[in-house]
Amino acid sequence: MSRFSQPPEAGFRRLNDSISFDWRLGPYDVQQSRAHVTMLAAQGIITGPDRDALDRALGQVEHELASGSFELAAGDEDIHMAIERRVGALSGAVGGKLHTARTRNDQVATEVAMFVRAHAHEARTAAARLAMTLVELAERHLDWPMPGYTHLQRAQPVYLSHHLLAYVWMLVRDRARFRHVVDATGPLPLGAGALAGVNFDTDRAFVARELGFASVSENSIDAVSNRDFVLDYLAAAATCATHLSRLGSEIVLWSSSEFGFCRLADAWASGSSIMPQKKNPDAAELLRAKAPRLTAHLVALYGVLHGLPLTYNKDMQEDKEPLFDAADTLETCLAAAHGMLASITFDRERMEAAASDELLAATDVADLLVRRGMPFRAAHGVVAGLVRTAVQQGKSLSDLAPDQLEAASPLLGDAFYEVLAGHAWLESKVSEGGTSLERIRQQLRRARAALAPA
Amino acid sequence: MSRFSQPPEAGFRRLNDSISFDWRLGPYDVQQSRAHVTMLAAQGIITGPDRDALDRALGQVEHELASGSFELAAGDEDIHMAIERRVGALSGAVGGKLHTARTRNDQVATEVAMFVRAHAHEARTAAARLAMTLVELAERHLDWPMPGYTHLQRAQPVYLSHHLLAYVWMLVRDRARFRHVVDATGPLPLGAGALAGVNFDTDRAFVARELGFASVSENSIDAVSNRDFVLDYLAAAATCATHLSRLGSEIVLWSSSEFGFCRLADAWASGSSIMPQKKNPDAAELLRAKAPRLTAHLVALYGVLHGLPLTYNKDMQEDKEPLFDAADTLETCLAAAHGMLASITFDRERMEAAASDELLAATDVADLLVRRGMPFRAAHGVVAGLVRTAVQQGKSLSDLAPDQLEAASPLLGDAFYEVLAGHAWLESKVSEGGTSLERIRQQLRRARAALAPA
Amino acid sequence: MSRFSQPPEAGFRRLNDSISFDWRLGPYDVQQSRAHVTMLAAQGIITGPDRDALDRALGQVEHELASGSFELAAGDEDIHMAIERRVGALSGAVGGKLHTARTRNDQVATEVAMFVRAHAHEARTAAARLAMTLVELAERHLDWPMPGYTHLQRAQPVYLSHHLLAYVWMLVRDRARFRHVVDATGPLPLGAGALAGVNFDTDRAFVARELGFASVSENSIDAVSNRDFVLDYLAAAATCATHLSRLGSEIVLWSSSEFGFCRLADAWASGSSIMPQKKNPDAAELLRAKAPRLTAHLVALYGVLHGLPLTYNKDMQEDKEPLFDAADTLETCLAAAHGMLASITFDRERMEAAASDELLAATDVADLLVRRGMPFRAAHGVVAGLVRTAVQQGKSLSDLAPDQLEAASPLLGDAFYEVLAGHAWLESKVSEGGTSLERIRQQLRRARAALAPA
Amino acid sequence: MSRFSQPPEAGFRRLNDSISFDWRLGPYDVQQSRAHVTMLAAQGIITGPDRDALDRALGQVEHELASGSFELAAGDEDIHMAIERRVGALSGAVGGKLHTARTRNDQVATEVAMFVRAHAHEARTAAARLAMTLVELAERHLDWPMPGYTHLQRAQPVYLSHHLLAYVWMLVRDRARFRHVVDATGPLPLGAGALAGVNFDTDRAFVARELGFASVSENSIDAVSNRDFVLDYLAAAATCATHLSRLGSEIVLWSSSEFGFCRLADAWASGSSIMPQKKNPDAAELLRAKAPRLTAHLVALYGVLHGLPLTYNKDMQEDKEPLFDAADTLETCLAAAHGMLASITFDRERMEAAASDELLAATDVADLLVRRGMPFRAAHGVVAGLVRTAVQQGKSLSDLAPDQLEAASPLLGDAFYEVLAGHAWLESKVSEGGTSLERIRQQLRRARAALAPA
Repeated sequence: MSRFSQPPEAGFRRLNDSISFDWRLGPYDVQQSRAHVTMLAAQGIITGPDRDALDRALGQVEHELASGSFELAAGDEDIHMAIERRVGALSGAVGGKLHTARTRNDQVATEVAMFVRAHAHEARTAAARLAMTLVELAERHLDWPMPGYTHLQRAQPVYLSHHLLAYVWMLVRDRARFRHVVDATGPLPLGAGALAGVNFDTDRAFVARELGFASVSENSIDAVSNRDFVLDYLAAAATCATHLSRLGSEIVLWSSSEFGFCRLADAWASGSSIMPQKKNPDAAELLRAKAPRLTAHLVALYGVLHGLPLTYNKDMQEDKEPLFDAADTLETCLAAAHGMLASITFDRERMEAAASDELLAATDVADLLVRRGMPFRAAHGVVAGLVRTAVQQGKSLSDLAPDQLEAASPLLGDAFYEVLAGHAWLESKVSEGGTSLERIRQQLRRARAALAPA
Repeated sequence: MSRFSQPPEAGFRRLNDSISFDWRLGPYDVQQSRAHVTMLAAQGIITGPDRDALDRALGQVEHELASGSFELAAGDEDIHMAIERRVGALSGAVGGKLHTARTRNDQVATEVAMFVRAHAHEARTAAARLAMTLVELAERHLDWPMPGYTHLQRAQPVYLSHHLLAYVWMLVRDRARFRHVVDATGPLPLGAGALAGVNFDTDRAFVARELGFASVSENSIDAVSNRDFVLDYLAAAATCATHLSRLGSEIVLWSSSEFGFCRLADAWASGSSIMPQKKNPDAAELLRAKAPRLTAHLVALYGVLHGLPLTYNKDMQEDKEPLFDAADTLETCLAAAHGMLASITFDRERMEAAASDELLAATDVADLLVRRGMPFRAAHGVVAGLVRTAVQQGKSLSDLAPDQLEAASPLLGDAFYEVLAGHAWLESKVSEGGTSLERIRQQLRRARAALAPA
Repeated sequence: MSRFSQPPEAGFRRLNDSISFDWRLGPYDVQQSRAHVTMLAAQGIITGPDRDALDRALGQVEHELASGSFELAAGDEDIHMAIERRVGALSGAVGGKLHTARTRNDQVATEVAMFVRAHAHEARTAAARLAMTLVELAERHLDWPMPGYTHLQRAQPVYLSHHLLAYVWMLVRDRARFRHVVDATGPLPLGAGALAGVNFDTDRAFVARELGFASVSENSIDAVSNRDFVLDYLAAAATCATHLSRLGSEIVLWSSSEFGFCRLADAWASGSSIMPQKKNPDAAELLRAKAPRLTAHLVALYGVLHGLPLTYNKDMQEDKEPLFDAADTLETCLAAAHGMLASITFDRERMEAAASDELLAATDVADLLVRRGMPFRAAHGVVAGLVRTAVQQGKSLSDLAPDQLEAASPLLGDAFYEVLAGHAWLESKVSEGGTSLERIRQQLRRARAALAPA
Repeated sequence: MSRFSQPPEAGFRRLNDSISFDWRLGPYDVQQSRAHVTMLAAQGIITGPDRDALDRALGQVEHELASGSFELAAGDEDIHMAIERRVGALSGAVGGKLHTARTRNDQVATEVAMFVRAHAHEARTAAARLAMTLVELAERHLDWPMPGYTHLQRAQPVYLSHHLLAYVWMLVRDRARFRHVVDATGPLPLGAGALAGVNFDTDRAFVARELGFASVSENSIDAVSNRDFVLDYLAAAATCATHLSRLGSEIVLWSSSEFGFCRLADAWASGSSIMPQKKNPDAAELLRAKAPRLTAHLVALYGVLHGLPLTYNKDMQEDKEPLFDAADTLETCLAAAHGMLASITFDRERMEAAASDELLAATDVADLLVRRGMPFRAAHGVVAGLVRTAVQQGKSLSDLAPDQLEAASPLLGDAFYEVLAGHAWLESKVSEGGTSLERIRQQLRRARAALAPA
């Protein structure tokens, strides 16, 4: 019996039903139903035999979901109703007791929190795996020089290891962010009822413990209105994907003929339908391309929640598809980045040649003048003048004649040629976090420590 | 034979393959392949018998796609390859000629343009249908007074018909916007080759005519790099969905006990899993909630295209899922808005009572003073003072005593009470586009004209 | 001397210069320059007299910035250059030593981190202030009944205090989020040089301590490429603003004639330029309207960083305007929400009348049946049937005759009327986090504890 | 006199006042006030002398605004009130008649439409200017070969002119889009009153003509609720900026040492604060970086309008800052792109060398086989195999021995070497829109025609 005299229209169901995507919450639905039923019996709200019958039916549903044999019925608008229907079919009238002291509002919030928590953990694991791949890659290419770029212009030489480790620290931050996401799923919504609490003396702390929640939500209205943890997950995912997009973008660049710094394994590249010679870095391009998708999912949910009066509104059903796709996309990307990098090859010769560009030593020449007493800003001006002369005359810096140097500054002298010839530009970056080998070795130790299981 | 020595990794395929969503382009793929083959033969690039064999195979694929019997193979990374594979299986070696003078780059751009065009037309049709429903609703509730709101405060009375017609003009603009989208799909990409044109003397104008394109793209590089028409579609869809979100939001408000202006049909409402009395306006809420989803799809594609070097990059594969979901969502929403409104009931009594609030006549009282020679700004001040007195004394305006009026302005007199009593506030809005009945009748005629098939 | 032979074009400067907005970093720039200079001298990189001269000049600049007497010159493209220029003018040639072992890349990253940290602390303070206002408001309206809504339909009665406290828990989470933002600004970028570290043996840990950083960035490339902390701030701000938008939206609703639950103070409302009677909740509307602005700032920065190769790129200059406006907007909103709520008045009568709607007791009637042994799902059906009958017959639930009840379920009996009459619906919500007074008192204690200064 | 007993709080004004940005609407405000006053007199709503007095005062305000001598008063919350206040000060009591039959709601909508229209025209002009610069650049580099890229991999050679022209067609589309924006500002909102029309028999068509509107809005509620034209402007601007971001991104790439295809003029580049050798493409980077800013402005306004009930709500004040900044940013970018390209230099040698990569002829070799009867898909496989062999043996294609060719396909023969040696790969792209010189000349004619003033 319902208060309605007409069944829902097809057009309404097309808009309204969520079963086509929320089936993914099935396992969480069963898990929390089992905890709920156990608690109801422990509190004397249902009987022991009722609990056993419900638990048996739920166990059967769990099995059906896992094995893919769970069948949907025409009227199932969402997975919660589908499971309750099936429990009823398996257990008879007692099935109607499953929803005692519970509503879809707190139920859905709980399951979404469980999904978020599981996938935040998954992201942490996958990020660590990728970071370790980068650490190992850095170790294998410890002293391979390459140009460091600012504005995509060669700026100063660095070691490839140093460059790769930059991504490790991004992933370390990503892991911390997902740790906060786990914390954000801490308070259990279940037990909040529709919005006001329930008419039964439930034991929410017990259910929280059973389901891995750290606490119990403090306010029933907030409990069913809150999707902050989804926002937190989506923001963490968008930031992580943005990091991967920078990595992807660099691999695309480095794979070009012009850079020629790396080669992807054939198994991580694509051909062309028309150009037989092409080997395209599709995986790297897609790593780059997926970040806006995740950002968009975050924007979508901010949009849905914007200005929404409390408590639960149907609008909040729009939290699920962005979340599910974000988790799938992020996990696919983290795995693909790992696979792509685990099989990549770098070209030492090409990188080293690019890093030998004498202009990259200009700062070191200026610093030479600083050490000889000239203020940095003046030294910068002297060297800029020399660069300008060299560029205009089509020469490299070391082609400049001693009298040209003398005219620029009497402080330069032969040391000028030594700085250029020495190629010690990398090892001079001795400051903490700098690119000298000793500092990189220190960094590798710290990176391994940061990634060690807690 | 391929230039690659390794097959693609599973993790790569998970990221890279598009067959799980681009199967939707199948019918367009066949259609353009048939036009392409006809052209190749007409230009002497393939023979007549080759054309016939290919066309037969394509006809068979078309049939299989339509009947759902088309089978995917394990290696199919996208629908284009799947169809070419199937054509090969059906026609033998000649199948290898299908891809002559064509690439996936111009092929995909063409099919996406065809999809966009078809769904822009569909949106125009569905928007017209919804607009006509609103026109008819306006006609049936022509002279039902209700409060017009600014800042959600009752401002001035209007007729329900006038309020409903506001949405009609939004939809008329939406239709114009989708008309521009159709135009944006005008130039045919096919024939651009990978990016540079092709080595054959093709007849692109013929293919354009066959496939319903208005012209031929002028620059092969632009042709394969361009997704403006998808942006245009997504922007039009986001704007239309934003209009629907305002409509949905108002229906939610009006369905509340506090407003009580309308009742949804049972077939367009939901119950609660826990509260037996609830009748929830889920359809209206979801109309409201879908707009951020479409906006997000637009943002995602802007993000993907941002800073992307020419010409085709794999990133552009990310145009499809947002587009497909946008089309599905918008069409579902337009249909649902139509169904919801076609079955809605308004409560004349509740609306009229709300519209009778005397405060809504305050502007009319001020205008009375203007007509009697007082500058508007001074008249506004006089009436504001009366309102303040009335509110402070817990009275309605007509309860104010003649001496109170006299003290405020000698220009008021009995006409003050007449304005309040007359309830002629609606009919006094005689300006073009205003809420007087004559103006609304004029508006209805214009709305019907604007929606008439061209 | 520069390597350039032409001065920048006006059109280039219009696009490129940042002085029109980055002047806000001035105080941070001076602060870090002073710490840098102290460190340079302590490490023997500059002399004591040099340090003193630079520090004196910096002190003068600090004074000029604070007093508004700092003057910009025509060539100042950003605040860093302006300050360095002014230091040079004040100190002579030694001014050229200020930029030793430092670059604009690590300098800007450092100052932006300092700005973020300062404003994350500010947001924590303002959020706590607003939350305390809500706690006090809840205490003053502890037992005022009102309807709780789902889908904007009256669902179950709650106390106003309970509803207001829902926002407190949102703000508690916001404060935790801004705490993470503070942590994200922990590692000091300064000392990373342009990207590779510097040629001097600097003491970064010293500078970190001086400037309030918790540690030193581990990788110089990451240090100048990283803007995660800005993303983190913007995400926290967008989420907080989204909470405020829900609050604003509810105040707009509650201020309407239809709800009539609250009245804003005149000092927090606006009139109309035309309608003398209007009192508009502009502040509440703007609280609602600002959330998309902050979300957009977040989107903008995600967009800028998407696919950006390491290390510093000029694109990153686009981090500042969104950040600055986000901080200003959020702080204005938090303060306005506080002011608006500190002066709001609620209408007990209107709220209580709305909460007395008998339909709100439907769940309680169903729970009565559950307690008498009927499975919840069946009880839900029985009560839904009664609601349907009552609605169809234009009656309230308590108007239903005993035989009608008997027909629906023999378990109901007189208790049915007692439940409806008892108005004990609020006090029956005894579950943890529920709306019964005892639970709310518990909640108030916990909220005060959560907001207590650490 | 106001209905309020308290003046607005400072915190409220900080949130609420718009004068700090809407002063930009000043000139439009005066313009429409003058038209409004003329109409009021013509309709007999005010007298001729009143009109003259108001018009004189408005003329004075216009002069003060243009000369920068207009002074704000402490109470001015927006520019409309400031101007009305000033008109009152200049004209005495008659100033109070200015607001007859008009409200801030229709006034603001009208002025924003005027702003949008003016800047849509401005964007059209600036886009045409940039496009003509590109056309001329293409003409000057008509036959300079360079590699065309897909996936940033060299794909097929094209002429630089062809590549540059791709951007012309994007700008042609942008111009069409801004043309639609102009159309979208067609209907005049003024005369809609607060929302319901006005109590006077106004002549809206006259005002429309005076102010350059094409028609009169059909529905007063829609007139004050509608901001579609701002959305349309922002979408057009975001798309145009996205085009510029792709251009900027390519200039960044091409300016790198690795590509070395172009050099920016010194006046359009920046140095480094630390590295004396650096010449950074800041203008190109900022062209790239601005697109997300404009997209974000669009998102912000979609967010504001989402779910907003009719009619005017204060939230809509949030339309202005995104709009103003979008117009400024877009116009700065279009001008900068023009300036940057007008002074750019290309390096024919570097481009030609890159275009001579034999692998770029692979498709042509495959097409050779097609012409000799082999199906394309088979030909693709044959050439892919040759590429694989060459790459594995570290040879170029023309190093392959005749017997290697023979083994691959007897159809190849000497023609293989001729295709590779011929460098006729560009001229073979004879299809419409292709890169052969004849086709480019045709394209140049069409581009000039498309850009010709209508």
